[in-house]
Amino acid sequence: MDYLGRQQKTLELMRREKVDALLVTHLPNVCYLCGFTGSAAVLAIAGRRIALFTDGRYTAQAREETRGAKVVIAKGPALTAAAKWLEKSRPKVVGVEAEHLTLSLSSALKKLLPPKARLRETRGLVERFRIIKEPGEVERIRAAVVLGASLLDAALKVLKPGIAETRVAAEIEYAARQAGAAGMSFDTIVASGPRSALPHGRASDAAVPRNGFVVMDFGVILAGYCSDMTRTVHVGRMPRQQRQMYEAVREAQQAGIDAVRAGVDVGRVDAAARKVLARAGLGKYFTHSTGHGLGLEIHELPRVARGVADVLEAGTVITIEPGVYVPGVGGVRIEDVVVVTEGGCEVLTPASKELVVL
Amino acid sequence: MDYLGRQQKTLELMRREKVDALLVTHLPNVCYLCGFTGSAAVLAIAGRRIALFTDGRYTAQAREETRGAKVVIAKGPALTAAAKWLEKSRPKVVGVEAEHLTLSLSSALKKLLPPKARLRETRGLVERFRIIKEPGEVERIRAAVVLGASLLDAALKVLKPGIAETRVAAEIEYAARQAGAAGMSFDTIVASGPRSALPHGRASDAAVPRNGFVVMDFGVILAGYCSDMTRTVHVGRMPRQQRQMYEAVREAQQAGIDAVRAGVDVGRVDAAARKVLARAGLGKYFTHSTGHGLGLEIHELPRVARGVADVLEAGTVITIEPGVYVPGVGGVRIEDVVVVTEGGCEVLTPASKELVVL
Repeated sequence: MDYLGRQQKTLELMRREKVDALLVTHLPNVCYLCGFTGSAAVLAIAGRRIALFTDGRYTAQAREETRGAKVVIAKGPALTAAAKWLEKSRPKVVGVEAEHLTLSLSSALKKLLPPKARLRETRGLVERFRIIKEPGEVERIRAAVVLGASLLDAALKVLKPGIAETRVAAEIEYAARQAGAAGMSFDTIVASGPRSALPHGRASDAAVPRNGFVVMDFGVILAGYCSDMTRTVHVGRMPRQQRQMYEAVREAQQAGIDAVRAGVDVGRVDAAARKVLARAGLGKYFTHSTGHGLGLEIHELPRVARGVADVLEAGTVITIEPGVYVPGVGGVRIEDVVVVTEGGCEVLTPASKELVVL
Repeated sequence: MDYLGRQQKTLELMRREKVDALLVTHLPNVCYLCGFTGSAAVLAIAGRRIALFTDGRYTAQAREETRGAKVVIAKGPALTAAAKWLEKSRPKVVGVEAEHLTLSLSSALKKLLPPKARLRETRGLVERFRIIKEPGEVERIRAAVVLGASLLDAALKVLKPGIAETRVAAEIEYAARQAGAAGMSFDTIVASGPRSALPHGRASDAAVPRNGFVVMDFGVILAGYCSDMTRTVHVGRMPRQQRQMYEAVREAQQAGIDAVRAGVDVGRVDAAARKVLARAGLGKYFTHSTGHGLGLEIHELPRVARGVADVLEAGTVITIEPGVYVPGVGGVRIEDVVVVTEGGCEVLTPASKELVVL
């Protein structure tokens, strides 16, 4: 991981945004910039001085993990120590991450800043350049996605009418841990029967019905990086309408994948998937966006959504996950992770999308 | 759950803090005040008007769960819709939750507010009265704690030298799901051998050594409420020093429990545990606080820490979890959940604290 290159890029962006110093408080950004993975930290940048502030719980870990920044073990709050450390550089404008800093911490910080310094809100300063992944990051995401895809088998082994959704989630999560995952990247979704029409149907104690769709959406964290995938299967007798729904979503998902390449704006990828569903008369049931970036976090930039003009660049990793949700009937979602290349994209998710009827 | 009573109490506190309207954005507070458990919502209170704002993903769920508030399904961001809804009440001072609202949302909100209205930062307004649990909440916490305590057996069944810490965590989490937990309340800690000296040693791929302590700290979420417990066992030959460490922590934990009763300030509870460890010459290895409140969140008020003067009231639920961490040697932590009563406390955690040597 090119921590020093990332710090260099941050310094350039700081110059462009006219901030003399920057306090990075969003932990995934801290990790991205210096490698530290603890749960309490502030990375402070002032000119060429860079320091990581954390507390006594992380003394050994901070020294082992941190690259390109001095490690300071603060007695009190890390933010207080970081603000004090800025004094020496006499910054006039101190940037903060407005999308992550609370109003309360911001108020406290204003009182701690060096005399004559003032806060400036920055937005997505680090997140924007996290969009394009380094080759080493793509390999970590690939490893997480491959592990994630292997979990589907564990689910299918127990999935049958009558089993509780949470039991299916249990098998997925157990298999993930057995395979060495650090944990799940979000609450596992197992939504069966009418519940499959809920786009965010976290596994509940509901039993899988005799007939209906089962949407399974899950991801792991491996070596710090997230995976994310969705497959939908059908249990029991499958009416023709449901079969058409499945095939339409599958076609839409493929159209989304086919639209991805460097130079295309994400709105066009969204439109490609949406068009297929509209043509199938299902447009109004596709109630969310087509995908999102992922990496250290499960949701990163870019949003692959209607009308978004961000242009895809090679090395960007996104999900493609259209879905349709018909209240009272059920829902279908199919999701892969892809990495953008100059000529198109590579699908990282090694799992079949053929319709499975159990 | 007494949602209407909680809303009434909020109105009283709003009057005391001189805010005409309040925007509740912290999701556990939203859930506490109206019952809605979705992942995107704002509860707006203006005079006697109360409305919950969420989005189309949660239409059915919001109508089913929400008590005492009108449900509004917003097309755009919930906060924007909520700000617009305030207009009709012409509030002059709109309270926000400063500890949870980001600077970015706060800036956006200022532009959306009705003319002549201004923001006021509130802190812990809802959190402070969440400290004292209703009987129904204590019962839910008890159920979560009992489920949580049952997981230790699953861990002990596989725990032996050579097994990866993540494999032990896998058994704990699998058993939790099997028993119906909605998930874990925090990343499971399994820290063995020298890693047991890390107070926050999340399960890693390290193998349990032939000799040493294994600290296991884990909790579940059941019906919305959290559990939290820690037990430490020893594998292999146990030197006398380690045995003394264990007994000192056990004695300190009991001293903490014995100090709990309504009317006592939390600093005294912390001091009671700390005194035992100091007497055993281990004071400097007890590097964190003695405990914390828990309920809808894994960490709630009060902090049971050195010098904190908050007075315990009956119905408060806290953890008691002293620990000692000797770098290079290992660590011991023992944690129970207790509910404060007039005359003392009831320990909710039904698990032995006898030393287990495997």
